[in-house]
Amino acid sequence: MTCAVLSIGTELTRGELVNTNAAWLSAALTDLGFEVVEHVVVDDDRPRIIEALERLAAYANVIVCTGGLGPTTDDLTTASVAAALRVNVVRDEGSLDHIRRRFERIGRPMSDSNAKQADFPEGATILPNPIGSAPGFEVRVHGARAFFMPGVPHEMKRMYDEQVVPRIRDIAPNDSHQIRLRTFGLPESAVGEKLAGVEEAFPGVTIGYRAHFPEIEVKVLARAPGPASRRPGAPVPADPQAIVRELAERAAQEVRVRLGDIIWGEGEDTFAGVVGRALRTRRWTLAIAESCTGGLVGHMITKEAGASDYLLLDAVTYANSAKQSVLGVDEDVLRGHGAVSAECAGRMAEGARRVAGADVALAITGIAGPGGATDGKPVGLVYLAIATAKGTEVKERTFPGDRLWIQTLAAYVGLAMVREACARG
Amino acid sequence: MTCAVLSIGTELTRGELVNTNAAWLSAALTDLGFEVVEHVVVDDDRPRIIEALERLAAYANVIVCTGGLGPTTDDLTTASVAAALRVNVVRDEGSLDHIRRRFERIGRPMSDSNAKQADFPEGATILPNPIGSAPGFEVRVHGARAFFMPGVPHEMKRMYDEQVVPRIRDIAPNDSHQIRLRTFGLPESAVGEKLAGVEEAFPGVTIGYRAHFPEIEVKVLARAPGPASRRPGAPVPADPQAIVRELAERAAQEVRVRLGDIIWGEGEDTFAGVVGRALRTRRWTLAIAESCTGGLVGHMITKEAGASDYLLLDAVTYANSAKQSVLGVDEDVLRGHGAVSAECAGRMAEGARRVAGADVALAITGIAGPGGATDGKPVGLVYLAIATAKGTEVKERTFPGDRLWIQTLAAYVGLAMVREACARG
Repeated sequence: MTCAVLSIGTELTRGELVNTNAAWLSAALTDLGFEVVEHVVVDDDRPRIIEALERLAAYANVIVCTGGLGPTTDDLTTASVAAALRVNVVRDEGSLDHIRRRFERIGRPMSDSNAKQADFPEGATILPNPIGSAPGFEVRVHGARAFFMPGVPHEMKRMYDEQVVPRIRDIAPNDSHQIRLRTFGLPESAVGEKLAGVEEAFPGVTIGYRAHFPEIEVKVLARAPGPASRRPGAPVPADPQAIVRELAERAAQEVRVRLGDIIWGEGEDTFAGVVGRALRTRRWTLAIAESCTGGLVGHMITKEAGASDYLLLDAVTYANSAKQSVLGVDEDVLRGHGAVSAECAGRMAEGARRVAGADVALAITGIAGPGGATDGKPVGLVYLAIATAKGTEVKERTFPGDRLWIQTLAAYVGLAMVREACARG
Repeated sequence: MTCAVLSIGTELTRGELVNTNAAWLSAALTDLGFEVVEHVVVDDDRPRIIEALERLAAYANVIVCTGGLGPTTDDLTTASVAAALRVNVVRDEGSLDHIRRRFERIGRPMSDSNAKQADFPEGATILPNPIGSAPGFEVRVHGARAFFMPGVPHEMKRMYDEQVVPRIRDIAPNDSHQIRLRTFGLPESAVGEKLAGVEEAFPGVTIGYRAHFPEIEVKVLARAPGPASRRPGAPVPADPQAIVRELAERAAQEVRVRLGDIIWGEGEDTFAGVVGRALRTRRWTLAIAESCTGGLVGHMITKEAGASDYLLLDAVTYANSAKQSVLGVDEDVLRGHGAVSAECAGRMAEGARRVAGADVALAITGIAGPGGATDGKPVGLVYLAIATAKGTEVKERTFPGDRLWIQTLAAYVGLAMVREACARG
C-alpha cells in the first residue's frame, strides 16, 4: 500500500515555512503500516496542483494533501481538485452553517471569503473541522483515495487522527508494530553506538532515530517477514500482528536495558508531563525560580493541562533586585559570588520554596548569552539548585550552543532534577 | 527562471527527518530572484529518483538536489543520475585522494564504501566538499542545470553558497522585490478583505499571506512585467530592480494605510522584540505577573538577547497563596472576586510593579482550560492589567480555542498593552 503526501502553498515553495506537516503525516502513515514513497510540494498554481494530483493518483493508493483551503484568493485547492475530477464546485449548507456559528461564537461577522470554505468538489465526502473554519474532504482520483486537509498543523493533526485514520485503517497493511522510546541526555551518535548490533540480533527489527532538540526519540519497528522470506512449507502465521508486537517488545526491552535512565518516556509522553506525573504521585507542590531560562521552565510545566495541581509559583527574577525582593536572596551573596553562582542558585531555590510554601523548588541561574560573559564565567555556564525539606543540592553545568539551546538544555536538566528529587522523596 | 528542489532519502519519506534543506534552499533561491515552483522528496529507490529527475528537467531551468551521496548501499543518487543520462559511473582520482587524506586526518581507515563517494556520472563537474567526505556534482539533464549535494545541512549550505551560487547567479532574474508586513489582531480572512483590490490597483503586485498563529504576515511582492506585457515600442527599463522596488513600496504603503495599527513590524521583526524596543526607547523597566499564561510572556520576552536591559521580574503566581505572598494581593480580593477577576489582575500588576520597582507592569489572570471553568467564568476568560505611575488599566477578553491558543492570544494581547503603554508614556 503506497502513499504520497502532497503539500500546497507558495509559502512552502518559497521556503518561508518548513514543511513539518509532510514529516508528521509520513511518520503517522508509516506507523499505520503504509509505505510513503513521495512528498510533493507545489505552489498556489492551479495547473501544477492538478498535474501533481493526477500524477500521484496514477500510482498511489492513498494521497494525503494539506494546504490551500483558506479563505483568500490564493487558496486554490478545492477548485483545482474539482477541475481534475471534471466536476462542479458546490456549496455545502451544513458546513456554511458551522462556519457561521463559529464566527458568531467569537463575535465576528462571517465574510464572503469565509463562505468559500463551505465549497467542495461535487460528490466529495466532507471531513469536519471542529477547531477551525476550513473543513477537509475526501475524493477518489482514478482509484486513489485522496484526503484534503487544512495546512494549519493542529487542525490538520486532529482531522487526520479523527477523520482520516478511521477511513484508511482497514486498508492499512497490518504487519508491523512500532514502539517509541523518548530519551534525553546523549547525542544521537552516542545513542546509536549504544544500540549497535540490535538490528542484527532481532531480524525484522529496524531502529530509527528522530532528533527533536534536545530529545532523541528511538523508534523500534518490527515488520513481519514477507511470504518470500518464509521457509518453504512453513505455515503462514495465524496472527501476524501478535508476532510483530512480541518481536518489537523483545527488541525494545533490549534497547531499554542498553540506554538505561536516559529513557524518560514512551509514545506521546512529554518531558514536562512526566515530571508533572512524578510530582502528582508524590503529592508534592512545586515552586520555580528562573533567571537565564526566562520563564521557559514554567511555560513547559504549564503547557500541560492540570499543572495548577502542583505548580504554585514560577518567579522569573531576571534582575538582582527581584532576586532580593521576591526570593530574599542576600545582597552579600550577590555581591560576594554574583548572580551566576552556586550560592545564588541555592538561595533562590530556598527562597522560592519558602515564599510559595512548596514541597520542592527548582532554581536556575546562568548566562544564556550572547552577552554577559565575564572572566571565569563563560556563556553557557548555568547553576541549577533543588531545595526540599531534606536540604539543597546544586549542580554546575556548562551548556553548548546559542541562547535558545542553552535555555532549553538548562530547562531540561532542571526538570530532570525535579523528577529525581520526586523519585528520592 | 523556474527552479525545483529534489530531496532524496527514505528517512524523509518515512517522516523521521523534517525536510529543512528544501526550505533553506528555496528561501535562498527565492532571494536570488528564482521562482521555486516545486519540491519533490523520493525514497532511496532508483526508478523513482530517475523518474523525478527527468520529470523536473522537462520544465525547470535549475534543479537543486540533496541526499543519497553517502557511503552506504542505500545511497543511490550518483548511479541513478548516470542511468538517467545513459552514461557510465567513473571514479575521480582527485576526489579519492581528498577522501583518503580526510580519513587519515581523523585517524580512521578509509573503507571501500567511502571510496564510492569518489564516483561520478561521466562528464559531471565536481563540486568540492571542504567539510565532509561526499563531494557534489553538476550535470545537464535535458537542458536543465542540475546540482547534487550531500544531505548533511551544514555541508549542503556551504556547498550551495560556495559552488552553486557562483554558477547560477548570472542566470538569476533580478526583477522582483518583496516587502513583508507583520500583523496581529485580525484573522487571515479579515486581513484579506481589507486588502481586496490592492492587486488590481497595482499591476505586477501579488499579495500573499502567511499565518503563523497568532500572527498574519502580509507579503507584498512586485515583479517586473515580462517583455510580452510591455507596450510595443516602449523602451526596456534601464534599472528593473529600482522599478520593482518602487512599485513594491507604493503598494506596501497602501497596505499600511488600510491595515493601520494591526501592523506591528516588518521583515524579521519579532513581536517581543518590538515590545522590547519600545521599552528601551522609553527607558522603562518591566515587571510581569502571570497566572494562566504560565511563563509564556516571560519566555517570549527573554528569547530576545538583551532582555535583561528592561525585564526585572516575571512572577508566575499560579497558586493563590503565591499571588498573596509574592505580589501582596489581598485575601479579600481573592475571596470576594476570585483569582480570575479585574480586581485581582489590577492588584497583581500593581504588586509586580512595586515588588520589582519597575516602571510598567503587566498582569494576566484567566482560565486557559480545559478545566477550571465556573458559573459565569468560562474557559478563555482572561483579565489583563497594566500598571504605570499614572495608574492601572484592566481589560477583559474571552479568547477562543484550546489551552495553547488561549495562552498565546493572552500573551500577545498583554504584550500589545505594554507597547501601547510605552507609546502613551
